[in-house]
Parts: sequence; structure tokens; C-alpha cells
Amino acid sequence: MSPSPSWADDGLLSPVRAGSPVEAATGDRAWLQAMLDAEAALARAQASLGRVPKEAAEAITRAADADRLDARALALAARETANPVVGLVKAFTAVVAEADPSAAEDVHQGSPSPDVFDTGAMLGARPALALVRADLARTAGALAALAGRHRGTLAVARTLALHAVPTTFGLRAAGWRALVLDADARLARIQEGGLPVSLGGAAGTLAGYLEYAADGPQPAPDGYAAELAEAFAAETGLAVPVLPWHALRTPVADLASALAFTAGALGKFAVDVQSLARTEIGEVAEPGGPGRGGSSAMPHKRNPVLATMVRAAALQVPALAAALTGCLVSEDERSAGAWHAEWQLLRECLRLSGGAARTAAELAEGLQVRTGRVRANLDLTSSQVVSERVAARLAPVLGRARARTLLTEAAREAGETGRPLAEVLGEMPGLPPEVAGALPALCDPAGYTGAATALVDRALRS
Amino acid sequence: MSPSPSWADDGLLSPVRAGSPVEAATGDRAWLQAMLDAEAALARAQASLGRVPKEAAEAITRAADADRLDARALALAARETANPVVGLVKAFTAVVAEADPSAAEDVHQGSPSPDVFDTGAMLGARPALALVRADLARTAGALAALAGRHRGTLAVARTLALHAVPTTFGLRAAGWRALVLDADARLARIQEGGLPVSLGGAAGTLAGYLEYAADGPQPAPDGYAAELAEAFAAETGLAVPVLPWHALRTPVADLASALAFTAGALGKFAVDVQSLARTEIGEVAEPGGPGRGGSSAMPHKRNPVLATMVRAAALQVPALAAALTGCLVSEDERSAGAWHAEWQLLRECLRLSGGAARTAAELAEGLQVRTGRVRANLDLTSSQVVSERVAARLAPVLGRARARTLLTEAAREAGETGRPLAEVLGEMPGLPPEVAGALPALCDPAGYTGAATALVDRALRS
Amino acid sequence: MSPSPSWADDGLLSPVRAGSPVEAATGDRAWLQAMLDAEAALARAQASLGRVPKEAAEAITRAADADRLDARALALAARETANPVVGLVKAFTAVVAEADPSAAEDVHQGSPSPDVFDTGAMLGARPALALVRADLARTAGALAALAGRHRGTLAVARTLALHAVPTTFGLRAAGWRALVLDADARLARIQEGGLPVSLGGAAGTLAGYLEYAADGPQPAPDGYAAELAEAFAAETGLAVPVLPWHALRTPVADLASALAFTAGALGKFAVDVQSLARTEIGEVAEPGGPGRGGSSAMPHKRNPVLATMVRAAALQVPALAAALTGCLVSEDERSAGAWHAEWQLLRECLRLSGGAARTAAELAEGLQVRTGRVRANLDLTSSQVVSERVAARLAPVLGRARARTLLTEAAREAGETGRPLAEVLGEMPGLPPEVAGALPALCDPAGYTGAATALVDRALRS
Amino acid sequence: MSPSPSWADDGLLSPVRAGSPVEAATGDRAWLQAMLDAEAALARAQASLGRVPKEAAEAITRAADADRLDARALALAARETANPVVGLVKAFTAVVAEADPSAAEDVHQGSPSPDVFDTGAMLGARPALALVRADLARTAGALAALAGRHRGTLAVARTLALHAVPTTFGLRAAGWRALVLDADARLARIQEGGLPVSLGGAAGTLAGYLEYAADGPQPAPDGYAAELAEAFAAETGLAVPVLPWHALRTPVADLASALAFTAGALGKFAVDVQSLARTEIGEVAEPGGPGRGGSSAMPHKRNPVLATMVRAAALQVPALAAALTGCLVSEDERSAGAWHAEWQLLRECLRLSGGAARTAAELAEGLQVRTGRVRANLDLTSSQVVSERVAARLAPVLGRARARTLLTEAAREAGETGRPLAEVLGEMPGLPPEVAGALPALCDPAGYTGAATALVDRALRS
Repeated sequence: MSPSPSWADDGLLSPVRAGSPVEAATGDRAWLQAMLDAEAALARAQASLGRVPKEAAEAITRAADADRLDARALALAARETANPVVGLVKAFTAVVAEADPSAAEDVHQGSPSPDVFDTGAMLGARPALALVRADLARTAGALAALAGRHRGTLAVARTLALHAVPTTFGLRAAGWRALVLDADARLARIQEGGLPVSLGGAAGTLAGYLEYAADGPQPAPDGYAAELAEAFAAETGLAVPVLPWHALRTPVADLASALAFTAGALGKFAVDVQSLARTEIGEVAEPGGPGRGGSSAMPHKRNPVLATMVRAAALQVPALAAALTGCLVSEDERSAGAWHAEWQLLRECLRLSGGAARTAAELAEGLQVRTGRVRANLDLTSSQVVSERVAARLAPVLGRARARTLLTEAAREAGETGRPLAEVLGEMPGLPPEVAGALPALCDPAGYTGAATALVDRALRS
Repeated sequence: MSPSPSWADDGLLSPVRAGSPVEAATGDRAWLQAMLDAEAALARAQASLGRVPKEAAEAITRAADADRLDARALALAARETANPVVGLVKAFTAVVAEADPSAAEDVHQGSPSPDVFDTGAMLGARPALALVRADLARTAGALAALAGRHRGTLAVARTLALHAVPTTFGLRAAGWRALVLDADARLARIQEGGLPVSLGGAAGTLAGYLEYAADGPQPAPDGYAAELAEAFAAETGLAVPVLPWHALRTPVADLASALAFTAGALGKFAVDVQSLARTEIGEVAEPGGPGRGGSSAMPHKRNPVLATMVRAAALQVPALAAALTGCLVSEDERSAGAWHAEWQLLRECLRLSGGAARTAAELAEGLQVRTGRVRANLDLTSSQVVSERVAARLAPVLGRARARTLLTEAAREAGETGRPLAEVLGEMPGLPPEVAGALPALCDPAGYTGAATALVDRALRS
Repeated sequence: MSPSPSWADDGLLSPVRAGSPVEAATGDRAWLQAMLDAEAALARAQASLGRVPKEAAEAITRAADADRLDARALALAARETANPVVGLVKAFTAVVAEADPSAAEDVHQGSPSPDVFDTGAMLGARPALALVRADLARTAGALAALAGRHRGTLAVARTLALHAVPTTFGLRAAGWRALVLDADARLARIQEGGLPVSLGGAAGTLAGYLEYAADGPQPAPDGYAAELAEAFAAETGLAVPVLPWHALRTPVADLASALAFTAGALGKFAVDVQSLARTEIGEVAEPGGPGRGGSSAMPHKRNPVLATMVRAAALQVPALAAALTGCLVSEDERSAGAWHAEWQLLRECLRLSGGAARTAAELAEGLQVRTGRVRANLDLTSSQVVSERVAARLAPVLGRARARTLLTEAAREAGETGRPLAEVLGEMPGLPPEVAGALPALCDPAGYTGAATALVDRALRS
Repeated sequence: MSPSPSWADDGLLSPVRAGSPVEAATGDRAWLQAMLDAEAALARAQASLGRVPKEAAEAITRAADADRLDARALALAARETANPVVGLVKAFTAVVAEADPSAAEDVHQGSPSPDVFDTGAMLGARPALALVRADLARTAGALAALAGRHRGTLAVARTLALHAVPTTFGLRAAGWRALVLDADARLARIQEGGLPVSLGGAAGTLAGYLEYAADGPQPAPDGYAAELAEAFAAETGLAVPVLPWHALRTPVADLASALAFTAGALGKFAVDVQSLARTEIGEVAEPGGPGRGGSSAMPHKRNPVLATMVRAAALQVPALAAALTGCLVSEDERSAGAWHAEWQLLRECLRLSGGAARTAAELAEGLQVRTGRVRANLDLTSSQVVSERVAARLAPVLGRARARTLLTEAAREAGETGRPLAEVLGEMPGLPPEVAGALPALCDPAGYTGAATALVDRALRS
């Protein structure tokens, strides 16, 4: 094989996204192509308003191919100007000139770096978002099926690490799905609101664009700015923002926040799978396959590797997103640093969230529920998990305080001895006979799942 | 005066929120009252469904007064249970019992800590959000007036710390306002979506509530859970969530994200004011007043203290919000730690954002624009700020590359010598006469503000 | 009781530090007293160099009592100047003047806000650090005892949530202690390096101090600055920094980093306790006591509340510390915002770390190890936990790949059927007799703890 | 050119590190090589203790060449096991087997993934740290020269964005250098403490290593573990830790904290350069060069691009480091996620800090100080910058309060009218003649630099 260059990041340190579609959609090449697409769309928009010859716009569009530029060379050149656009424009102009020298004069007309970079970033983020959402949909679908399948599967709910009360496995899965849907709704809102084009000219007034248009048929200056924005939006499929956003970074902050939510939501699913996969608990296992989950040292292990990768992403994205939100504090008409700090952070948020979504989909689709272990765990504590119920039933008879004390004592004894709670309680003096008689039924966990199945049904309808 | 207790936080280290309405609305007393309001609303909701006597619900409601409990004692007791609700229920039950012993049996019926705590947190956050929004509205209003007033005030736009091109002061102010409106829209979305009640019972199945209801007229279990949620929501004015959210922390993550955005948006306004207030720049000054902005050492200073406090908040909230987003990774049916980490962080996000909004409103309403300095700064560089324009005009004549080189050279010379750019350019050989003649007009910054005023108008209509 | 004021924070939302000694040591009163102590020490230092009358310095020192000032009024006044020192100097001067009008002229002589505030912060942090370290010492001591007691207690080690290989409980406890000692070493380094006085005058040149000294016997200006710094350091017990640090925030960043480490280190102990306390695992229980760990709804629970509170702190401090590190980016000779953002964050880091250390000490001292459950868990997987060992022993006989395949298969079968691994393996064809005979010994977990006890011994010597 | 693969990161979004030596030293290939170096060193260490044939160790060492493995394939395979080591061992064993089949049996003997990965990470971080430190040394050296050159260059100090008092440019540069030295000291401490080998076996007991050693001459088990650690450390040049650190993540947290400090320290230098480079201030300019600092739209600009890139790094690293510190909360004997989250974050911290250090060195070495502008700015406020001094001189005569009021008024008038402060003051009634006569000298900024030069001298000696 021909080795990767020394600086390469082949995903060795980030398996959660290695090989994922979002990774491919967010590489430097995709970003470069998106910037070229922005240049071409701008030329076409200017052409549609009669400011650039149609043939030039077509030549520019034909030349806008990332494979004709050298991303590494552009990255190195970017050190001279703190951004890759200056070098890109130079290199791209040369490419255009090769095919059509006169069209080269119309490349990047009136445009500053952020219009190209930020429009490119939105063009780059758009398919990445769609990919994330597709994997969230897969995940939610698989979790809905899981919730439906285990709608009534009795299980124990845990709070503060301890058995609490009975629930159903379906309600747990419905909860995972609800969070995934919440994440998807936050991403959808961004898509639907429309990622905006960036079109401000050197500092938000669009003066450069107007100037380049000035030797055509005299435009109403205000009208032309709006028309150009509309045309640019039409050519890119992006939205028109109220104001140029070189220093008003709402679109990036919104992406950051929705992606952090997504990673966090998937992280909740992941840590639950890990808890439930613990050797002592064993309620779930990850989907298997040859080599999947293997350890380099211990032949007996089948590690919950999908959940592990998802959780690893969830531990990173909120911090990256916080740095992005901090970049809202962007001074002047364009910041000397806050803008530049966003780029890699945003890509990494997309990659990690996208990788997590892809991985979560595999996990959700293949998750194995060991119903025997689920039931066995519920039965582990000799019915202590219904102590709340019995306390409630005894309260009107004995008073709440005494009922509670009695149950605390009985639960402790049941727990220590392993004797059924109903039996322990039955021996306690002073229990009214009608309660004593009802104890076996009262202490059956199956009778104390509350509205669990109704909640599953409600959630699955949402 | 009677000194505050040793542990007190009187705001000495956080002047941005000292004395602000949000600070008062988010103190421990308000939080305590909100939890008591949750208890009372729950009792009334249960009463409305016939599960608790109306008189008991009324007695509970009458007793729900934070001044009758000792917040410090509850805080200390909370160490025993890692949350303040267990102690609160005990103390509150005693208060109810004093007035109506039988009603005491109906306090906190079937309820676990998170239902009370989280519902209380939403009740506590609601007025705080309204206060933040009121101050954002004041801020946006003042900035709209500023933008209108300076719609056509010529100013210099700065990018990467340097003069870029002409703009108007109004466009700058319109940008600040746009971000403030974006923040408000994010908070409004939360208010309108409805902060939800928390009603899950011990672990999300509502079993406890159903159990307590079981000795009344037999309810359809599923129906009762939904009815209780509706009734609780009606009594609190909060919304009904799809699922209990003990471990699905969307409401908190959403608040965190919107508040971080708010602080960041205000921080952008603040750093711009600071840059513009610099001694050498002097385009704006903060509103004065006796003592305002004074230094303990230097009599001549009038520090931009409002902007300073706002920026201090903007440097904090995104980090706190990131920790809150991280708490989405909340294991089991209730986390042993992630839930508990949220409480102080959320309050602090509210306080800092609220204090920043209040402070920004004062700043926006009193901001002084020194139009003389604004104009003088624009003129500082001998028209270099129109170099983009002249380059555009020369490009068709000389070709883009040559035009650019010429302008770079001329701008450098104008900058170094202080001679007007038009004059320097006029002496350059090879300039076509029609361009040479147009130079004075071309180099007038007033002619190169692009769509600035149109953008102000568009933004103010939004 | 007299209710706390509306803005009060009585610890209701932060039980981890409610009532802790660090909480009391870091209240606004303590911070106020520390600032007054800084003022008094400065006056004494100036007096020791003959620049202030000794009597004045004594009068200032006598008046430096936080109880004579109104912290809330100072906090409100701080909004006028963005820091509390301007108001404090005014109020303190009045207090001094009451007792000794001429001494009042010598208060805060030549001094700016940061010299008082930052010196006060270091004086405030010093005892807080000592308290944190005392609780870390208690924690480490208890964990050392635990490690010693369970030096040879066989237990199962878990990796990626699954049983891995045998270990001893003592090695686990020794690991917890090692991290606690690491945290303590990082705090000790700060204490030993010496928290520095802040003495820079208005902008780091000490000009104000020199000016006030100018009408005494003519000092060598350079000498006097150094002498004053030495004297100030002597009076406060703090260190002399190389340069004034108004804008060089190393001392605060160092504190942030050491406190974040501390919280993180304790968080590791906490999450392990939580995992081990899970109902299904049950290897440890938290120290009990009446009411400790109780749930408001479920009488049978004894929640791991101490670990929960420690973990809650560990989820917060790193984020707060990151914001503090970010404040290193402090522009000019003093920042308009980065300085101000530090104050509350630093206090909160101290409080959370201090509360976590106090809570961890209680946890470590009272942690109950259920040796029966520890052993039972080890035996849960029919000796799969020695699969690594048997694979190693078979490798030279069968080759590594075949040995591994065999073990994977045998471990799977043992796991599924519950039959002992030795028995399953014994039935496999092709096993050399000398290995077959050794199987019972090889599969005894007690024989496969590696260097666990030696490592405990080594660690306890460190 | 042959285009980079779709997933490639060629540095387009992170110019601060594009082409830097740290970037090359931290690519996936370097990380892969470091893991192979760890494998080889382990084999040699085992050979030195007689547990592996010397020839095998030599064959393994010869084969340990990253160019013989396919990093991308390993990254994709890592999804099966959540870490790249399992696949690496398989692929590397095959490479060894090609040359020496018997040696292949001795690859990775007794070793688990983290021993290889973490030792590799330390081997990878070591040269990166050295590179960062080399650039910090260059930066500090250049700043020392700058401070020396401008030891006495009068300048204005700014606090809260406003002119405060006179200082010297040298003191400012000495401050930048002091922070850089602080950063270097924190990195040095890590180097000197010694980055540790990771050697714990599957779960920290080293049992696997002991087992593989068991068929040689019988070792004292405890002794062998210590000997192997010593030998492994000797072969790698790393240090021996007290305990295996699979779940005790001090080495990573320490790196994170020192790197965050480094980025923050450089960020302070960067924002100061940006403020001073502002068009209106113009005290410094970045080193030029063809194309350096150019704008795509505005020919007149020479942007402070180096400072911009450094600041962009400073806005990112503290957040990444916070996530790393959060990974201290690593459950069990190895975490299912917290470990995995560290990898990319740590590499990115190294790259950003290393890129920032390299960029800062260029900036410091080429920074141009425009002494004319420095002086002009000092004179801008008609001597208001000495108001503190005059107030101090008048205080004994008029009382502090009256002196302060007088100066506030005079400074205001001087500022507004542009008349010299001495002149304005001279006209004020009631001024004692001896003060009036001294006014011209008192109001000369050159006489009020306090201990600035002495502090420069002291700092440069440190």
C-alpha cells in the first residue's frame, strides 16, 4: 500500500466515525468541494442577474471540481492568510483560466473569504445532517420495534444504582427512542429553518458585490443586494438570512447545540446498554459477529463495543459544542480568531455525532434482550421492589409513618434473608387480616407496573 | 446590620446579577416555594380526580409557604439523601399537620423526589425565563432605536482587527439586535413548547400514584395516569410531556442551550462596545452616572463596566451549559449523580444570563455614540477603506491581478504618508483618464456603504 | 426563624458542600474578610517601610473586620464599577475614619482593585485548600486501611463492563487511594509554590505605591517596589511573584486545574462505589445511619448518596475549570471581563471540590465491603475469568491461534451452561494429558491474581 | 496530484497546525509507529528477563515499521473492538511471521490493548512535547529580546479597555514571556516526572505477563512484575508508574492541563498583539512577507494572521482539555468509553498547542514595534494617564477625597478639550503654589513608569 502522509488522520483514534458516511461527507475534500460549489453558485447567481456572462458562470461551474485542487497545498497556504479561501480563489482562478481565460475574471467577484467559507460550511453540513438524521431514524425505528416487542416484558427499574420498582423493558426502550426523536426534532428544526447562505461582502454591506454590478445596467442598489441573496440561495438551495452573519454566528451555534444534544441523547442509550450488559446484570447483549467485541487478551469476552464508541462520542461533543457557543462572542464585523476556531470544532461535532448515530443504529437494530435474565433480576430482591406499594396500602390502616417503618424493616429482613417479602410481612404482628390476606397478590411485581404499558403505547404514537 | 451567615453568597463575586430580578427569582427561597407549589398542585390535581379530599388539598395549598420552612436546615438534611425533597416532605408534612392533621396524610402521595424537584425547577425557571425575555426585549428595543437613529451614520467596519470598508453605525446596531432577537426566539420556543411537569412516580411508571388512587372508585389505570398528568399540568400551568423525564433530560438540556446562546449573544454586543470604547477608538461610551465606571485608583477613568459584566457572564455560561448537556448521559431510570449535578448549574445559568440581560438593557438604553469620533475613525486611513472598490473599478480596465497590485501599492503609500488615496492613485502612470477623473468620487467612503441602509431597514422590519 | 433573603443560596441545590468547612471558608464574608486582611497587610507593609505611620497601620488592622461592612450593599454597589473593591474601600475607609480619622487617609494607598481582590482571593483560597487537603488525607488514610485489610481479598476485575480477570479488592482500593494522593500532590505543589500576593498598582508598574512613598525619605524606586512586595508577602504569608499578575493569570489557572483534577479523582472512586453497590453486584454498601440514603417513596432503598454527591461534583468542576483556564486569554494590562469571570467560578471550584473531599472522606471511612458478595461475583462465570491464563498455557502446546479459538469456545459453553470451565475444557479432544491434569488448578481464580498483592504493597509504601 | 481520500484531514480547517512539526509527529502513522515501538520494547524487555528468545525480540523489533501496516484498514477494523490494538496485533503478527514464524508467537505476549495503546500514546506525546517546548523556547527567547530592546520604551498601559497609566513596552513583552515560561515549566514538569509506561495486563494485575513467564525459570512473581516494568521502561525510555493506570488517568489529565495552559498563555500574547495592531492603535504589526496577511477582497489589509491562528487554538484547547479531565471519572478496572474518548482529544490538544507554539514563535520573532505610534498613543489623552499620580501628590495637601474630585474634573476637561492636564490644573483655584509649580514635571508620563524597568530586569533574570 502507499502509506498515508505523516499528518494523516485515518480514524485510528476515533473508531466511532471511521468508515461512517458522515466521515466521508465531512473530509477536507468535501469541504473543499462545498467551497467550490459556493463559488460556482455565486457566479451563476450573478449571471442570473446579468452581472456575469452566462458562459463564464458555466465555465466556472464546470471547473468547480475539488479533485483539480491540492487540499494539502491549500492548507499550507492558509497559514499566510489564516484561512483557506484566499489560496483557494487563486488556485481555482488558475483552473478556470486554463479552460476559459475570460471567465477567470469573474471568479469570486466582489466576494470575501467568509462568504465562500461559511456558505461552503453550510453546504457541507447539509448532507452531513441528513446522514445523521437517517441514522437517527434507523435507531428510533429499531427502538420502537424493541419497545413494542417488550411492551409488557416485566423488568426492574433502577434509580441511584439500586432496584426501585417494577417496570417493563418496553418502557425503557420507549424512553431511549423518545430522546432520539428529541434529537432528531432539534436537527430537523435546523434543516427546516434552512441553513443560510453567507453573503455579506467584505464586512456585511455587500458593497463589493454592488460595485462589481455597477457597470452593468444600473441596479437599484438595495434591490440588487436582496436579489443577489435570493439568487445565491436559489442556486445553493440554502436560505436567505435576515442579515449577513460574518459576526452573528447563530447558524453555527445552533448546529453545535443540536449536535451536542444528539450525542448526549445517544449517550444515554449507550450507558444504559452498558449497565444492562454488565456480567452480573446480563439483561442485554450487543449484536455479535465474528471478531465483534473481542479482547486482545481475554478469549471469553464479548465487549459492548458499540455502546462504548457511542459513549466516547457523547463524552466529547458537549465540550466541543461549548467552545463553539463561546465563539458567539465574535468581535467587530469579523473576528480575528473566534471565526477560525469554529471550523475544526464544527466538523468534529458532525463526525462524532454522525459516527455515534451510525453506531447507535447498529446497536439498536441488533440489541439482544435476554428475557430470562431480565426476569431473574426483577426477582432478585424477594419482592422488595414492591415495598412502595405495600406501604401505600398499609398507610390508611396504620398511618403513613408507621407503615413506612414497618416496610423498611420488612424489606431489610427480606433482603438479608432472601425470604419473600410477603412471608416476612405476614409474620409481623398487628397486620389487619384483610391486608395479610392480600399480601401474595400485593407483592407480585407483575401487579405493580403502573401505567408502563399505557406509556409505551402513548410514546409509540408520538 | 445582622451579618449574613458564613456560607452566604450575597453576590459579591458576581455583580452581573447582584440585585437583578432574576437573582431574586432564583434564590433558594424561590426554589423552595416552587417545590411547595408543586406539592400543593399535586394535591389539588389528585383532589380534582377524587383521590384526595378537597379540604386536604386546600389545607396543603394554604400551608405551602416557603417562609414556614428553614432552607438551610433542609440543605443540611439533604446530605443524608442527596436531595432536598425527602427532608422537605417531612418538614412540610409537619407544617400541614399543625393546621390539619388529617390533610398531612395526603401530602406527597405516591410521589418521589424528582417529581417534586423537577416540577419545582420548571416552576422556578418559568418566571426567570420571563424576566430574561423582558430584558432582552428592552435591549432589542433600545438597539432598534439606536439602529434607526444611526441608520445612515457612516462608520468603519473592522475585520481581523483592521479597518475594512465603510459601513453604517446603524448596521452594527442592527446586528447586535438581530442576535438578541435570536436569543429571545430560542427562549420563546422553550416557553411556547411548554416547560413540562415531572410526573413519573418512583421510576417512571406512575405506579405509586395509581396505588394511592386504588382505594377510591376503581380507575382505569391507564386513564388515571393520563388524567393525573393533565390535572397536574392544569394546576401548575406547565405542559404534559410524552414520557416522564427523570432520566430523559431534554427540558434541562434545552434550557441550558438557550441560555448559553443568550449569554453568548449578549457577549457579542459587549465585546463590540468594549472595542469601540477603547481610548484610541472612542466611538461609544457607556451611560454615565455618579460613581459609574469609576476606578479605585485612576480618577480619569470611566470604565465600560456594564459591558465588562456582560462579557464576564458570556465567558461562564457556555461552560456551565456544556456540563448540563453532558448530564443527558443519565444512566438507569434515574441517575446517581447526573441529575444532582444539574441543579446548581441550571440556577447559575439562569442567574448569569438574567443578570447579563438586565445589564445589557441598561447598556443599550444608555449607550452614547460619539459621532465625531465615528467619522474621524473612518477618515483615519486616507481612504484605504475603499481600496476594494477602486480595485473592482480598475479590474475591467487593467485586469484583476494588476488592479489588485496597483491598489495594494497605493493603499500602502497612502497609509504610510497620510496622503489621500485618490491623490496617490492619481499620480500613478497608466491610469485611464476616465478612471483618474472619477477618483475623488470613487474614494469617498460615503459612496461605498453598499446595501447598509437597506439591510438596516430589512432587519428592523424583522 | 428569620427567613433568608430572596437571593440567598443556602446550599439547597448543592448538598455536596452544604455545611462543609470549605463552604464556610469561602462565603462572601470570608472573601470580604480576606480583602480587608489584604488592605490591613498592605498598610502594615507600608508602615514597615516607613511610608505609613505605624499607628495608622494598627488602626487599619483593628478596623479590618468583615462584620462591620454590609456584604450585600457592597455587592450591589459593585455593579457601578464591575468589582467590589471600589465600594469596599469607600466603606472601609469610613469604618477606619470613625475610630481614627487620620488613619483613614492611609487606607488603600496607591492601590488598585486587583491588588486587593486578587490578594484577597489567594488569602481566601489558602485555608480552603488546606481544608480540601485535610479531607483528601482522611480519604487516603481510610482507603489505605481498606487496601491493607483487603490486600488479598479475591475479587473480579471488570473491563468494558464485563468480568475480566481475578484481582484483589485491595488493589482496587489502592488505585482509588493513588488517585487521591495524585490530587493531593497537585494541591500541595500549589501550596508549596506559594500562592502569590498581587501587587502591581494600577497597571503593573507599582507607580502608585512609589508615588505615595515619594514624600518620605527618598527611596530607590526600584528597591522600594521589591521591598514593598517582600513586606506585603511577609504580612500576608503569601509568596512574591516574579511579575504582577493582573493579566498573567497563572495562579488562578493552576488552582483551577488542580481542583478539577481533585474532583475528577474523587469522581472515579464514586463511580466505582456506585457500580459495586448496584443491587446485582452488591460488593459494597455506603455507611448507614438513621435516614441516610432513604428514598421519599421506596422504603427498601438505601441509596449510595455519598457517592452520588461526589459524582455530581465531578461532573461540574472540570467544566468550570475550563472556563477559568480560558480566562488566561486576558487582554491588555487588565481584562474587561476575563478577570471578572473568574471570581464565582473559582469559589465554586473550591466549594465543590471541598465538598466532594469531605463527602469522600465519610464514604471511604465508612465503606462496607461485603466479602461474601465479592467472592460470589468472582465465581459467577464458571471460571471464564481465567480464560486468559489457560490460553497462555495452551499456546505453546497448540499454537496461539488454536489455543485462543479453543478457549473462546469453551468459555462460551461454560458461560451458557454454567458448568465449570475446567470440566468443559477437560472434555475437549486433543488436550495434552499434562494440561488436562492441571486444569482444576489452572482454573482456580485464586491462582491467577498476578502481582496484585505486591502492587498493593508497593502502592501503600508510596 | 493523487487526491486525498474522502475522509482525509489535510489541515484545511486548522491552519494553525498545518505543516507544523507537531502535526507530523502526531499523525496516525506516528501513533501507529509508537504502538509498534511499544510492542517491540515489550518483547525486548521480556527477552532481557529471559522470557522471550533474544532473536524473536530482534525479529519483532525489525518488523515494527508502521509503513508495513495499513492505518486505514486498522481504523476500520477498530470498530469491531472499539480500539485499534486488537487489529494491530493481528496484522503485526502476520508481518513478523513473514520474516520469522516462530517469533510471531512472542508478539504481544500477555499483553492487553491499553498497555500497547497507552504506552504508544506516551511515546507519541513525548516528541510532540519536545517540539512544543522548543517553540516555546523560541517564543520566550524572542520575547526576551523584545523586552530588552524596549525595556525603557514609554507606552500606555490599558485596563478595562481604557488608558490607565504609563508603562514600558518592555514590561508588556516581559509579561508575555513570563506566561510562556510558566507554560514551559508546566510541560517540563511532565517531561521530568516522566511519562509512564502502561503495564498492567488485562486488568492491572499483570497476571498475563506472569503467566507467559511461568514456563521459564521460576520467577518470584512479585519480583518479575517489577522487573518487567523496569525493563519495559528502560527499553522505551519512559518512567515506571506506582500502579498500572488503565483506570487511573493521571498522565492524560496532566497532559491536558499543561497543554490547555500553554494554549491559554499563548492566547494572551495573541489577543494583545491584536489589540495593539488595531488600525487606531497601530503599535505593532505582524511580520510581513509576500502574501502574508492578505485579504481576498481588500488590497490594503495586512491582517494579524499569526495572532489570529494562535487565538483560534486558545479558544479550543481548554474545552478539549476539560473533556479529558472529565475522563478521570473512569469506571471499573477499565472504562467502556472514558478511555476511548481521550484519544482524539489528546492528539488534538497536542496539535493545537504545538501549532500555536510554532505560530507564536514566528510572531514573536518578527513582531514589529512602531515606536512612533506607541509614543503617540501615550500622548493621546493630554496626560490624563498621570491623574493617579497628581491625585496622590495632592492628597496630603487637599485630603484624598477633594484631591480625587479635583482630578476627576480636571481629567474630564483635559480629555474633552485636548488641553494638557497640567494647564487645566494650573488654572484651578486653591492649588498650593508648590504643587502648581511642579505640575509640568508631575504630568510628564515619562516620570511615572514606577518600577517598570526594574521589573523588566527582574523578569529577564528569571
